[in-house]
Amino acid sequence: MTGEPGGSGFSRRHLLFGGAAAAGAGAAAALGASAAIRAGDEAAGTPDAAVGAAVATANAVGEAIVPFHGVHQAGIETPPQAHALFIALDLLPEVDADALRRMLRVLSDDAARVTQGRAPLADTEPELAEVPARLTVTFGFGPGLVARARSEAPAWLRPLPPFGIDRLEPRWNDGDLLLQLGSDDAITVSHAARMLLKDARSFATVRWSQRGFRRAAGAEPEGRTMRNLFGQLDGTVNPKPGTTEFDELVWSAGQPEWMAGGTSMVLRRIAMDLDGWDRVDRPGREASVGRRLASGAPLTGESEHDEPDFAALGPVGFPVIPDFSHLRRSRSEEPGERIYRRGYNYDEAPAGASVSDAGLLFASYQADVDRQFVPIQRRLEELDLLNEWTTPIGSAVFAIPPGCAEGGYIGDTLV
Amino acid sequence: MTGEPGGSGFSRRHLLFGGAAAAGAGAAAALGASAAIRAGDEAAGTPDAAVGAAVATANAVGEAIVPFHGVHQAGIETPPQAHALFIALDLLPEVDADALRRMLRVLSDDAARVTQGRAPLADTEPELAEVPARLTVTFGFGPGLVARARSEAPAWLRPLPPFGIDRLEPRWNDGDLLLQLGSDDAITVSHAARMLLKDARSFATVRWSQRGFRRAAGAEPEGRTMRNLFGQLDGTVNPKPGTTEFDELVWSAGQPEWMAGGTSMVLRRIAMDLDGWDRVDRPGREASVGRRLASGAPLTGESEHDEPDFAALGPVGFPVIPDFSHLRRSRSEEPGERIYRRGYNYDEAPAGASVSDAGLLFASYQADVDRQFVPIQRRLEELDLLNEWTTPIGSAVFAIPPGCAEGGYIGDTLV
Ligand code: HEM
Ligand code: HEM
Repeated sequence: MTGEPGGSGFSRRHLLFGGAAAAGAGAAAALGASAAIRAGDEAAGTPDAAVGAAVATANAVGEAIVPFHGVHQAGIETPPQAHALFIALDLLPEVDADALRRMLRVLSDDAARVTQGRAPLADTEPELAEVPARLTVTFGFGPGLVARARSEAPAWLRPLPPFGIDRLEPRWNDGDLLLQLGSDDAITVSHAARMLLKDARSFATVRWSQRGFRRAAGAEPEGRTMRNLFGQLDGTVNPKPGTTEFDELVWSAGQPEWMAGGTSMVLRRIAMDLDGWDRVDRPGREASVGRRLASGAPLTGESEHDEPDFAALGPVGFPVIPDFSHLRRSRSEEPGERIYRRGYNYDEAPAGASVSDAGLLFASYQADVDRQFVPIQRRLEELDLLNEWTTPIGSAVFAIPPGCAEGGYIGDTLV
Repeated sequence: MTGEPGGSGFSRRHLLFGGAAAAGAGAAAALGASAAIRAGDEAAGTPDAAVGAAVATANAVGEAIVPFHGVHQAGIETPPQAHALFIALDLLPEVDADALRRMLRVLSDDAARVTQGRAPLADTEPELAEVPARLTVTFGFGPGLVARARSEAPAWLRPLPPFGIDRLEPRWNDGDLLLQLGSDDAITVSHAARMLLKDARSFATVRWSQRGFRRAAGAEPEGRTMRNLFGQLDGTVNPKPGTTEFDELVWSAGQPEWMAGGTSMVLRRIAMDLDGWDRVDRPGREASVGRRLASGAPLTGESEHDEPDFAALGPVGFPVIPDFSHLRRSRSEEPGERIYRRGYNYDEAPAGASVSDAGLLFASYQADVDRQFVPIQRRLEELDLLNEWTTPIGSAVFAIPPGCAEGGYIGDTLV
């Protein structure tokens, strides 16, 4: 979590220490957990003593902490953790603006504690909170929640327009409140989710919950792009957190005002037909994306991060990177029409005779859904060979409000 | 995987190098991935060059390898990996002893490759095999499979007797063939499972599949006992792999002969009522097990591994460790009546209004189910306060055949 201080609520401590700890935690994870900075007890208020306490320990993965408070919410710029759990809740009919405020206060307090390795107030299994493992809790607001707050919603805060490729199942769609949990430890995710759900229970019911995974901390060298269950390197071209480009593409400048420093999230549950994919040979697979499977290089290049040459023609005069390829279709000429992808794999117990129920929890973050995400999805709907083996079965859009200062709560700019 | 060489198929290399690699992998994981030994390409047959190649890398968790071949199957003595997937298959009606042999050969070959970080023969996503992360594949045989082999079954190879506490759902019971996969990386588990299921497809269908998790590699200091979702330290008293005690309790001496070096596995899916547990105060929770929640110490002791004093009485004359406690009920006076527990947590998306669908994939290994497991479960059935919040909803028993030598296959002593 980086960024400029947002207002009076941000102490110098957050500026200096919060940033350092975030960088430390990220680096430690990327380095395969060779070192981590333990922030110590936030409540103790002795950051200076803790700052120097960078030690290489045998449980560096477990001890790594991502700050909760800040200009932006954690869990977006945070290098993706190994495990994620996305939970959508529906508010009970009687929840008004006052109740909403109470709920957001309680949940923010829970999240502020549990992400720092401290037990939430009502935690009946406090020992399970002792392994934060880069836990982040990110809150998202659906249109229903913003309506209860009697506030103005961003224009894009509504279900996506229907796409011809969609086979949406209502059980994976929409929701009033999103809880996005990420951690390098699966027990930590379960415990944190339960703490939050217990406190949310008097305000809301669970609509859906979706678990996903990426590589374990320390499983691959630093900076390696994730492979999805098709075996593709997935995430090569992506705005880089901490850059001006990222800040412009992802963070809202404030339309409406309460969204300044926030963003939007599109979560698509996309089933991947592994059996169908199996029947395609390697050249066919590589043509469908426009990149090599082994290296992730564009078909016109040598290594993963080479620039694709869309003009290059093959021996018989066809483009080397086919027109129908996912690479060509998902890339825009318009520099503002880009998104930040931070997806997870899912793999559930297959029902009946099928050998798999697997796919991608495609999660993207962008300042404006209509301006950035929708045009890309439209192009992919029209033409993208990958559609042969991928089917969107769930879809949800959330406004991710900005972060909060200590003493504040997530949503305090809204309600 | 340790143990004496089992026969002519075991080369000196396996004795020396296999054991060293196993120890190295276990230690590396326990040490939070500060070092791992990469075994190199088994097929290349240059173990001596590889032996010295212990290097600390940023991806030590991913590179760690557990040997596949050996006297015993891997995945039992192996320090538990972060992720497990248990899959039960039912053989197709037409599968006879010959087909069984073919199937076991193919699956053993797949397992021998994929556990060593090499792509199985028919792997269409070979890049996904590059991160073994201590992957193990352990095979188990149900009564149906042994019958197809026209061989003698161990006397205990049948469903457990019914217990009054059981609320078994058929969808979690029994099976002909068990595949137990474990790895510190969840993507690796998914890929390996798919490779095996693809090759099993012409012989069998999936009956059930159950995913579980423990702490991530590097999340906790070496040797720390796992906490389950009740927050209890779970696994304190357990035979220690590599000891004579373990060998005697776990490995079959050969009744029938094909089981020599094998063991049995009981897998119970036990739902844990987290909401009910929440309503119990800490003293009540501690009394129900007979141990402290924070330290795991017996109520008569100070630290986790202190011997409980069952004779100690409290101020009003009742035993300090209650008669109804899980600790007292699960412990036997009979030294042979012990089991090796190696369980995993599960936590699925809750259905409807409930806040959780969580519990324990209780997995235990013992030379003889009837002699070791059943008496314990009987005592727990009669009296165990923990029964208030735990409900067995699935049950399966498998014979785990011995390991195989290079060139052999799992089950080659049977069929
Ligand atoms: C299961 C479904 C999908 C799979 C398997 C998939 C896979 C891939 C792969 C392999 C790449 C190339 C490597 C990379 O840059 O990451 C890629 C790039 C990309 N994908 Fe997807 N994708 C899927 C769905 C989507 C969706 C729904 C969108 C947005 C609507 C999308 C947008 C993009 C973008 C923007 C890029 C980068 C293009 C560029 O190079 O500029 N993808 N995807
Ligand atoms: C969800 C169900 C269960 C939970 C939550 C649970 C929890 C525990 C806990 C907290 C301990 C004390 C620490 C330790 O030594 O690990 C323990 C010990 C033990 N449990 Fe369980 N257990 C469950 C089911 C079972 C079952 C089904 C069996 C066998 C039938 C079993 C057999 C044992 C044994 C043998 C011990 C060690 C006793 C000793 O100290 O000698 N448990 N269990």
